[in-house]
Amino acid sequence: MLVVAAIVVLSLVGAGGFAVAGGAAALLPERPEGCNQPDRTVTLYAVELPRDGNQIRLGYGLTPQTASYPGPTMEMIEGECLAVTLHNQVPAATLEQLRTDPTHPLGVSLHVHGVKYTQLSDGTAQSFSYVPPGQSRTYTWYAKKRDRTAGTPGTAGYWWYHDHVVGGPHGTKGIGSGLFGGLVVRRVGDPKPDRTYMSVFGDQQSINLRRGAAADTCDPVNPVPGPTCIVAKKGERVEFIVVGIGNDMHTFHIHGHSWADTRTGVLTGTNAETDQVQTIDNKTVGPGDSFGVQIIAGDSVGPGHWMIHCHMQFHSDAGMYTTMHVLDENGNMPPGGGHEHSATSSGAAPAGSGAGVHQHK
Amino acid sequence: MLVVAAIVVLSLVGAGGFAVAGGAAALLPERPEGCNQPDRTVTLYAVELPRDGNQIRLGYGLTPQTASYPGPTMEMIEGECLAVTLHNQVPAATLEQLRTDPTHPLGVSLHVHGVKYTQLSDGTAQSFSYVPPGQSRTYTWYAKKRDRTAGTPGTAGYWWYHDHVVGGPHGTKGIGSGLFGGLVVRRVGDPKPDRTYMSVFGDQQSINLRRGAAADTCDPVNPVPGPTCIVAKKGERVEFIVVGIGNDMHTFHIHGHSWADTRTGVLTGTNAETDQVQTIDNKTVGPGDSFGVQIIAGDSVGPGHWMIHCHMQFHSDAGMYTTMHVLDENGNMPPGGGHEHSATSSGAAPAGSGAGVHQHK
Amino acid sequence: MLVVAAIVVLSLVGAGGFAVAGGAAALLPERPEGCNQPDRTVTLYAVELPRDGNQIRLGYGLTPQTASYPGPTMEMIEGECLAVTLHNQVPAATLEQLRTDPTHPLGVSLHVHGVKYTQLSDGTAQSFSYVPPGQSRTYTWYAKKRDRTAGTPGTAGYWWYHDHVVGGPHGTKGIGSGLFGGLVVRRVGDPKPDRTYMSVFGDQQSINLRRGAAADTCDPVNPVPGPTCIVAKKGERVEFIVVGIGNDMHTFHIHGHSWADTRTGVLTGTNAETDQVQTIDNKTVGPGDSFGVQIIAGDSVGPGHWMIHCHMQFHSDAGMYTTMHVLDENGNMPPGGGHEHSATSSGAAPAGSGAGVHQHK
Repeated sequence: MLVVAAIVVLSLVGAGGFAVAGGAAALLPERPEGCNQPDRTVTLYAVELPRDGNQIRLGYGLTPQTASYPGPTMEMIEGECLAVTLHNQVPAATLEQLRTDPTHPLGVSLHVHGVKYTQLSDGTAQSFSYVPPGQSRTYTWYAKKRDRTAGTPGTAGYWWYHDHVVGGPHGTKGIGSGLFGGLVVRRVGDPKPDRTYMSVFGDQQSINLRRGAAADTCDPVNPVPGPTCIVAKKGERVEFIVVGIGNDMHTFHIHGHSWADTRTGVLTGTNAETDQVQTIDNKTVGPGDSFGVQIIAGDSVGPGHWMIHCHMQFHSDAGMYTTMHVLDENGNMPPGGGHEHSATSSGAAPAGSGAGVHQHK
Repeated sequence: MLVVAAIVVLSLVGAGGFAVAGGAAALLPERPEGCNQPDRTVTLYAVELPRDGNQIRLGYGLTPQTASYPGPTMEMIEGECLAVTLHNQVPAATLEQLRTDPTHPLGVSLHVHGVKYTQLSDGTAQSFSYVPPGQSRTYTWYAKKRDRTAGTPGTAGYWWYHDHVVGGPHGTKGIGSGLFGGLVVRRVGDPKPDRTYMSVFGDQQSINLRRGAAADTCDPVNPVPGPTCIVAKKGERVEFIVVGIGNDMHTFHIHGHSWADTRTGVLTGTNAETDQVQTIDNKTVGPGDSFGVQIIAGDSVGPGHWMIHCHMQFHSDAGMYTTMHVLDENGNMPPGGGHEHSATSSGAAPAGSGAGVHQHK
Repeated sequence: MLVVAAIVVLSLVGAGGFAVAGGAAALLPERPEGCNQPDRTVTLYAVELPRDGNQIRLGYGLTPQTASYPGPTMEMIEGECLAVTLHNQVPAATLEQLRTDPTHPLGVSLHVHGVKYTQLSDGTAQSFSYVPPGQSRTYTWYAKKRDRTAGTPGTAGYWWYHDHVVGGPHGTKGIGSGLFGGLVVRRVGDPKPDRTYMSVFGDQQSINLRRGAAADTCDPVNPVPGPTCIVAKKGERVEFIVVGIGNDMHTFHIHGHSWADTRTGVLTGTNAETDQVQTIDNKTVGPGDSFGVQIIAGDSVGPGHWMIHCHMQFHSDAGMYTTMHVLDENGNMPPGGGHEHSATSSGAAPAGSGAGVHQHK
């Protein structure tokens, strides 16, 4: 029978309320079902980093010395269970400064998207799964495979992890200070990139909390790949983990390259359904959203300084842009573009030419 | 031949203008093609509800006494034709208060997304398909199947219905006051949920027009499922109809659970194309957007108080969050989480712990 | 081995920096790989159009006399290579007025989404690929096919082209003044529409830079299809190229019609994967986003004045709406809707009834 159901007539058959039941009740589980014990362990440190002007900066690192924002990119294979032990080395005084409500607890945490974890690894204040200053806590993440019996999809995808307690119950100050990083869960057979870059689009027109020239610090002679220097050789498979944080909507746009709007960013398969997949070069990213972009650097289009920017015009105008520098197969940037024109005519870069990489002669 | 066509060179061959043609012209049809007569009828009432502070609240109900916001969730099967008779019991004086333009007509209406309807069921002022105070009108909705000859897709999906005339030509005041509800159109064989919840994300950081503690009023001892109490037992299939209303962008995020970004929220099929479907746990929702989320409550992650919130940080901080309470298979909430820590240590819930459900001993 | 990789440990093996290498280095290529020479050429003019109030208006045209905003819709077939020669006829004085930074160069350009182009056709100031006043430049676009060896998707899709230099390094003033147009790349066998309309959603609640009555200027007796008059006969396949520009988020919503969220806007195929494709009637569009909507005008729902609007309520209330006028198969608008009620009762159109098309008797 076809029915029109008012929500309010749903009833919870057999519900005994939230109160703890009698002696037979099990405790909340420590690990997700399917993870009997972790396949691997990682140690992560949350530390305070040098301030960026007046801005407090925090970061996650595999060692306290290598902490950064974004934090280290984690990679898992579907089926794997990972135990991440987080040490909170952020001074209590700093956490107090970031706290607006004196009744909110002091601590940092690890809240992850996409993979499975129990309440004890939720990373929230309400579940008490955070780490007070000077202490540590182990979070268990399970990259569950698709379960056709239960009807649940797999966890392979592009995700991120972040603090959920610094400053308030949603970790707004923790995220805003730098406590976030990327997570890729791959399926066996997924394409493996030659390079992986995080592109975290956030408030104040920032990419990875920087904007304008600060978002591209590539040394033109010896560019060192990293969060503020995106460089690849022609033909390399480059992967972007795109994440939105903060309060605003953004779009991720890259010049000269496009990708398939799929789980991996790559198109596979051969039939009519494959033919329906959208190829895009601009995608809206809201806070909490994450997706993967996989491209072949310079494919068909060749080397060059390819812009990456938010297509909200006032965002890009305010500095929400960076550049993917695609070198030729030998690692050189060929002449022939406007840069050489610049050098040979007036020597002055045009306004808005961005980072220092354009000053090469 | 490949062509570059300027839009302006398109011409309307044979167009005779909008004016009514001679005697041979047919009237605008009352029902969509394919619906000879309704398979089913529903009676709906639009009424005024108690104010929420100064806010006027209206609601749709299957009876005047059970009207609510959101209104009753409608369910149809592809191929079905439904006649909904709407009785406008909202006082004319209330509608006048909500009207900013004295030339705009007084009335309420039913405008539906996704399914088929003729101009006479459009629910707009410009088509005069609204209901003046004290009157009624029958709207015909047709859940058309895919038509491979015409090349049109089916109408199965997650939709919503809403007023389109209260206050102005777009029903802004009607929607903002509570005149909206969910509609699910299923295809034969689609997974059937054990529970369905509406999550309408709107202005002023509201979920179903409430925020903060008001968005989760679950009684910890006897939680009654409803718009402000999301509860399920482990293993139950829970469906969310997520809808955006108002002026702002939001994201729907749920902790510990994820879903397939498909028509049903569930992943089916076995080949390379299936493998390309994205699993997500956060999705941007703009006004007018609607999508379905289907999850197995507690799958792998177990029972607990799982947060649902907008991931725009200033939205969640301002109260745009609620909780899905997942009980164990027996309907109990197991101990072991932070809540018991709280009870046994200081007894004080942390700031931001949300609704009263956390005060259980 | 499963690894946790910090981004910063990526290294660029063999990178020689951006500086020009020795004599063996090739120049930046003029054309994308795969395009040995253009299959077709197009001439495009950028001109100044009459102001819209105080607003400077620019447009692209296949001739200077036919320039408009949006510019001509371009159409390509996958595999095709197109050379577009752009003549900049916009007065230097106008470009100076639009420039906020006196060091930014004067010129207009062509930056295209989706298809392939080298740095020399990037249309940016930093690559010097723009056109100073009174000059011309040829841009080469290559609608590359899917490359299964490289693992790159095809370029078929709904795209747009726009200026990237007027006013500043992101072309904000060029786009805002009207320098944009649509591009459709089709694959052999893709459905061919009977009519194509551009729907560019932008700042100040504009559709194609107009709003309110200005967005629908259809003559009720002889409606001439164009950017401000959307009209079709029942049964015609109508295609919308939906593009977002400017600073704001919007949603594209159409009454009575829906489409498949696929590459073409049409659903093809027969299996379980096809069944997972979402049918939608409202889609969020951020700046830089573009997608295609294909519908059969009046399918099942019949003729009528079908609203198209942004579902952000304050946007539609402020005039971000237009109408698709669906005539019957003979090109007439049948009586029977509210319009005739209006004519026979008071003769007054309700507030918000929109463009003059509702005044037909």
